[in-house]
Amino acid sequence: MRKLESLSFRFDGEKILILDQTLLPQQKTWLDVTQPEAMIEAIKSLRVRGAPLIGVAAAVCLVRQAELGITKKDLLNLADALREARPTAVNLMAAIDRLREVMQNNFQISALVNMAEKIFSEDIELCANIAKNGARLIQNGDGILTHCNTGGLATAGVGTSIGAIRLAYESGKKNIHVYIDETRPLLQGGRLTAWEMAELGIPHTLICDNMAPILMREGFVQKVIVGCDRIAMNGDFANKVGTYNLAIAAKYHSIPFYVAGPYTTVDVHCASGADIPIEERPGHEVRGVFVSGVGQVQWSPANVSVRNPAFDVTPAELVTGWVLDKKVLNMADIKNGGLLACMP
Amino acid sequence: MRKLESLSFRFDGEKILILDQTLLPQQKTWLDVTQPEAMIEAIKSLRVRGAPLIGVAAAVCLVRQAELGITKKDLLNLADALREARPTAVNLMAAIDRLREVMQNNFQISALVNMAEKIFSEDIELCANIAKNGARLIQNGDGILTHCNTGGLATAGVGTSIGAIRLAYESGKKNIHVYIDETRPLLQGGRLTAWEMAELGIPHTLICDNMAPILMREGFVQKVIVGCDRIAMNGDFANKVGTYNLAIAAKYHSIPFYVAGPYTTVDVHCASGADIPIEERPGHEVRGVFVSGVGQVQWSPANVSVRNPAFDVTPAELVTGWVLDKKVLNMADIKNGGLLACMP
Repeated sequence: MRKLESLSFRFDGEKILILDQTLLPQQKTWLDVTQPEAMIEAIKSLRVRGAPLIGVAAAVCLVRQAELGITKKDLLNLADALREARPTAVNLMAAIDRLREVMQNNFQISALVNMAEKIFSEDIELCANIAKNGARLIQNGDGILTHCNTGGLATAGVGTSIGAIRLAYESGKKNIHVYIDETRPLLQGGRLTAWEMAELGIPHTLICDNMAPILMREGFVQKVIVGCDRIAMNGDFANKVGTYNLAIAAKYHSIPFYVAGPYTTVDVHCASGADIPIEERPGHEVRGVFVSGVGQVQWSPANVSVRNPAFDVTPAELVTGWVLDKKVLNMADIKNGGLLACMP
Repeated sequence: MRKLESLSFRFDGEKILILDQTLLPQQKTWLDVTQPEAMIEAIKSLRVRGAPLIGVAAAVCLVRQAELGITKKDLLNLADALREARPTAVNLMAAIDRLREVMQNNFQISALVNMAEKIFSEDIELCANIAKNGARLIQNGDGILTHCNTGGLATAGVGTSIGAIRLAYESGKKNIHVYIDETRPLLQGGRLTAWEMAELGIPHTLICDNMAPILMREGFVQKVIVGCDRIAMNGDFANKVGTYNLAIAAKYHSIPFYVAGPYTTVDVHCASGADIPIEERPGHEVRGVFVSGVGQVQWSPANVSVRNPAFDVTPAELVTGWVLDKKVLNMADIKNGGLLACMP
């Protein structure tokens, strides 16, 4: 496999390295996750995260093991284990399924290597196209609200919704301002997007998730753009918990709400959001914060009962536009099979 | 002044003591705030909090100084300083204004003492009446979502919205379940309401604020009940940041949304929510968490720009009912001057 490199993911010809995202922005630590057990742990614990990137990372991990000569049987078992590391994002499953198809049709290391390299470079290209389609929706002077983290840390390329914001800014729309939901409980907005916006030099302001409607009411927000982990055929989509909350607030204030993702996020087997499994994560994430390398605080009673869905489903009726790599779809497009038409 | 005692506030005949709410639920520390400077600091830093209770606490502080013999001029200056300790809750201003009126009309220590004692015992009675009016709205089996903390820690009595929930439960509606918004950034829900529900033995579940709409969609929530810091004459009201967000979500799911507060929370000088000043608090509260006696974590970049409004305004159109001590008002009542009719 050739060398691969993105903002938070590297294959150096021998080792697979990830920038441990649980330690950002305080520490930049590259972690060796060449061993499958390490990769699976890294995906489960969000050291590597972002629906597109975990698909890429899992594919490279699997093919590296093929290169190292593990048996076809072990390879298929590993494919299963990687595929199940996180249940909501469909890109992970899509990437593994593409490799399984190669294994079944033409079990040659070179064919697997070609597919892994293709998945990596395709993600870069898909991001670039999403950015181009999304940037057109942004006007100079817009306040743009976003949730979680959808940039260069979450993909192999420039990102999805952050990619669009970045391209808009870099192509001359210098008077935009990004409002960042901190994204409880795991704070990907406060930790990662705030850091990424500063690195890119794009003006930004961090808020708690429950403050978004205030900014909308005060006129600071002209667009909402979020990423996604799975899009169903009726346009419903799963994304980081809090997205549904934000979509309702945008609707109430008549603010356009866009979701951005590559075709690999579309699940042709999901008729609607009701078919998307939602990962429920451990309660301690809600009882306090546990930020690796920084510290932890548990503020609530030790055994208090909690709910902790990691994702939620936003119904299509709340979405203004679906920003895919091929084009931007509206509700009429979705009803006319527009998502299927975006598949390669 | 006679001895006064509530869940988190005491006057023992000499000293004014508060249960430091920044240390709950991990530590139960009673703090001597007899000195006015200590009381003002305690109000500003939320060691004593809850719109009704800070009115009571400030009144007792002022009258204790009168008992100790400070001059009328110093007393009036102290009244001003106490009145300005927090800008959004109107109960604080209302309590101080009642004492100023006594000072102007009949400057006698005994008259001031009578008024402070009246403000204290009146709050207990107002809570009891709110609880009675609110409990009637709750049906056995209801899931009830609440925000921030509005119980015995926030008032001299049983509380406002938590008082209603408590009375419903204790009067036999044992199959209710309380869903608690953690209430970022200062986590009054996760710290205080979770603790108070456990103390009262009422079944409860803690969530992050952005998860409330998921529970609504899944059918777990039949009512939303919150407290308030100021009600304007058109029914708009200010409450802890995140309330507006919750009201929008309740509206979208057609779930009844109630706000509970005593008549001392009604501001006859505010025509609408636009007239309510909103306190903007320090940025570090959003950049991380700082829980006294437990720990602190700053997860976001050190100098990231933030917004941190401590309160927000919920427009009357999102409110199903205003639960006052006198009665429950609906929108038609509000339009017919119902709030004025609830004033003594």
